[in-house]
Amino acid sequence: MRKLDMKIIEPKLVRFIQDYVHGNGFKDVVIGMSGGLDSSVVAALCARALGGKRVFGVLLPYKTSSSESGLHAAEMCRLLNISHDTVNITPIVDAYFNNQTKATPLRIGNMCARIRMSVLYDYSVQFKALVAGTSNKSEYLLGYCTQFGDSAAAFEPIADLYKTQVFELAKYLGLPDFIINKKPTADLWPGQTDEDEIGASYKEIDEILSSIKNGLLMNAENWPKKTIRNILERVDNSQFKRELPPIAIIPE
Amino acid sequence: MRKLDMKIIEPKLVRFIQDYVHGNGFKDVVIGMSGGLDSSVVAALCARALGGKRVFGVLLPYKTSSSESGLHAAEMCRLLNISHDTVNITPIVDAYFNNQTKATPLRIGNMCARIRMSVLYDYSVQFKALVAGTSNKSEYLLGYCTQFGDSAAAFEPIADLYKTQVFELAKYLGLPDFIINKKPTADLWPGQTDEDEIGASYKEIDEILSSIKNGLLMNAENWPKKTIRNILERVDNSQFKRELPPIAIIPE
Repeated sequence: MRKLDMKIIEPKLVRFIQDYVHGNGFKDVVIGMSGGLDSSVVAALCARALGGKRVFGVLLPYKTSSSESGLHAAEMCRLLNISHDTVNITPIVDAYFNNQTKATPLRIGNMCARIRMSVLYDYSVQFKALVAGTSNKSEYLLGYCTQFGDSAAAFEPIADLYKTQVFELAKYLGLPDFIINKKPTADLWPGQTDEDEIGASYKEIDEILSSIKNGLLMNAENWPKKTIRNILERVDNSQFKRELPPIAIIPE
Repeated sequence: MRKLDMKIIEPKLVRFIQDYVHGNGFKDVVIGMSGGLDSSVVAALCARALGGKRVFGVLLPYKTSSSESGLHAAEMCRLLNISHDTVNITPIVDAYFNNQTKATPLRIGNMCARIRMSVLYDYSVQFKALVAGTSNKSEYLLGYCTQFGDSAAAFEPIADLYKTQVFELAKYLGLPDFIINKKPTADLWPGQTDEDEIGASYKEIDEILSSIKNGLLMNAENWPKKTIRNILERVDNSQFKRELPPIAIIPE
């Protein structure tokens, strides 16, 4: 994977945010702040692009969310000089699952992601703001996200950067160590990490994903067959998340 | 607007549903049943395509929803011989708005649409089913829908049919008069109708929308200027709802 020159990339992303937000007649954005890498980087880019007063963070903890994540999210907002609200989504999510049997972690995780999206969009109407997306290229290609949940946003500033590149960008932006040194996690249950759940490190994932050229995997001899199969199956099975739903076409 | 031959259109839509559902390894679909025209037509098409046992209806009333709508939705499920559940979304939606000030009808309507989507997608995981979309071409082009709400689905069987054509299809499918004779409504508040809210009749809307060719409105002399401006502005302002969110592209 090519190493990016962040001196060139960072102003490009800042300009993308300015062009999209201002070009659509907006001045403000809202961001769901998880205390993780992606939302911290997007918030930092938006603050540079629009000014801290034009960025609003929303912390959206569920009862199983790590309290450390919440502290980190609030501290990031403070460091970036952006305002924030906290909306505890537990009563909303549990109002549904109280009447459901067999609520699995997958079902609860997906519901949390979609309730967070719903709250962020409600904030976006109140603040006349756009919802800034926080997807990165690794999770986008793997489909490691909830459709119409965390992957739903008005625009995506870092969705063409692999996770390992987002780390590089975070260092370039001077983000604090408590963000950069944290193991990536969707925070679906205590101790969960992305890499454990996916079954490969982001270094491997990104090397493999970035070796796919025109739908073919180059240099396949570099990685274990099982890892390759895992990654390629995830890409293949999540194509629907990267497309609009198909429409039955009526011939003219 | 051209009159469609439903003897040709209906089997095309049935085949589209079969191809998409079976082609993606599924046998079942879930549909949010509102008691209105669109979800009734989609449920009828899916029952023809997949068999009634493979279609599951979910009624998703909010406290302000018309009770008549619920009765009609349940009666449609009975007539089509499909099973259904009812999930009252009031406790879920109100768990959020209880802590919010100035909840406007727009904010509540959007939240309801997104909570309904969230519940339908939760059902889709439990039933290993796909969420069937119920958008029609008129609301799709006007953007008369909630992004990541009622417009979110796995596939869209009637999104290339104008509302007036969906009425024709409903008659062809033999749907009951209580569905066909009902004024279209998003049921956001008692007595609301789409046509009052949009400010034009579906007959006008569909005639104007279907006269747009390559981005230009033909036969513009046929309608009042104010109506044309209203329709074209809605189409123009909702372009973002018909696209995937833009991604900042990193040059290779």
